[in-house]
Amino acid sequence: MDNMSYAVTVLSGGMDSTVLAHLSKGLNEKVDLVSVDYGQRHRTELEFAARTADKLGCRHDVVSLPIGEALSSALTDTDVDVPHGHYAEDNMAVTVVPNRNAILISVAYGIAVARGATTVQVGVHAGDHFVYPDCRPAFVDQLGVALKTGNEGFGQVELVAPFVHQSKTDICRLGDVLGVDWTDTWSCYEGGAVHCGRCGTCVERREAFRDAGVEDPTEYADPDYAFEVLARGSGS
Amino acid sequence: MDNMSYAVTVLSGGMDSTVLAHLSKGLNEKVDLVSVDYGQRHRTELEFAARTADKLGCRHDVVSLPIGEALSSALTDTDVDVPHGHYAEDNMAVTVVPNRNAILISVAYGIAVARGATTVQVGVHAGDHFVYPDCRPAFVDQLGVALKTGNEGFGQVELVAPFVHQSKTDICRLGDVLGVDWTDTWSCYEGGAVHCGRCGTCVERREAFRDAGVEDPTEYADPDYAFEVLARGSGS
Repeated sequence: MDNMSYAVTVLSGGMDSTVLAHLSKGLNEKVDLVSVDYGQRHRTELEFAARTADKLGCRHDVVSLPIGEALSSALTDTDVDVPHGHYAEDNMAVTVVPNRNAILISVAYGIAVARGATTVQVGVHAGDHFVYPDCRPAFVDQLGVALKTGNEGFGQVELVAPFVHQSKTDICRLGDVLGVDWTDTWSCYEGGAVHCGRCGTCVERREAFRDAGVEDPTEYADPDYAFEVLARGSGS
Repeated sequence: MDNMSYAVTVLSGGMDSTVLAHLSKGLNEKVDLVSVDYGQRHRTELEFAARTADKLGCRHDVVSLPIGEALSSALTDTDVDVPHGHYAEDNMAVTVVPNRNAILISVAYGIAVARGATTVQVGVHAGDHFVYPDCRPAFVDQLGVALKTGNEGFGQVELVAPFVHQSKTDICRLGDVLGVDWTDTWSCYEGGAVHCGRCGTCVERREAFRDAGVEDPTEYADPDYAFEVLARGSGS
């Protein structure tokens, strides 16, 4: 076991982490997939994560960790205004968990240390940098250094983010090369039976397929909205 | 609010974090206390944390975050041996959560960012360095840097560990100066009605009082064991 490449890969069930799971499977002798049920509004994605785990034949643990609930209960009845207005915007609902990536990565890292894995792989990518500081390369680098120090003697696990300098369009292109079945992925923040086509992540999804020149097999409740927004230039 | 010193202080209910809570209360204009119920075996300590919060008149949130359960469920039926034999030792039961401090600190940091606090204060101290790499100064420094990067633009929260270079004896001495009521603190890893006097933390507690020259008002089920162990030189 000692020299094998063994990745614990964080899989949300979205496009980015699903492509990452396929990439990890190619790169590593052994891959375990970990999803975190943190009470996300779009938890449908967890069912899509299970599909990918099944297809790749990887061990898949869904860790139930209500950080959203815990933090929001800790945030209620505070006498200080939450200083970030955009948290309240509809398509930013998921960002209601401050410091989310550090928490999720720390949990995955704990699992990796306990299992003797060699890497933790996460799908953060360059398209998220502008909005989310916890998707920036410097953050991933610094957190990786801290976690190695904090587990010295118990395991030497590298934190790896292969897409940190790539766009979502790049990830879509790679997924196409890897043969990812996109119907195994879920992006929408709304909890509907099909992708809404209107939320921020649906618009981003359509844009990535378009720009990568990859056919998008996704069924959208509103198939026109995204391209109208993108044509107006107000999409990302 | 903008220039006030505002600490989110992690309070377990043990000696170290209780002294830290008193120190924080002296140092800061505003102090919130946060405890994490992560399914620890010695959760009695949470009741003691509530006593301190009550005496100090601080807001106190007990965040329910079953990381122990989540990680142990993620670790069962693995086909890889957990590589750390000492995890199974009785007085190390709490260490069954790998990477625990990174997870707890990340959660407290998320709360601090959301509330607009200026610091997160944690009670890690030098006596823990040898056993726990996640109590070492380098880890605290590196994690603090990473978390600041990861929350840039949302808050500038400093991670502060005032006891990271001090021993438990030092902390006991300071607690005496600050007038801490030691009967508000709980150390024992066993779940009994009084401190057992035999587990690793009970022995460490008695040693700290003895070496600090502070009277120990704690009732121990076995009041002789600790000093017998310490006399034999096999205690810490």
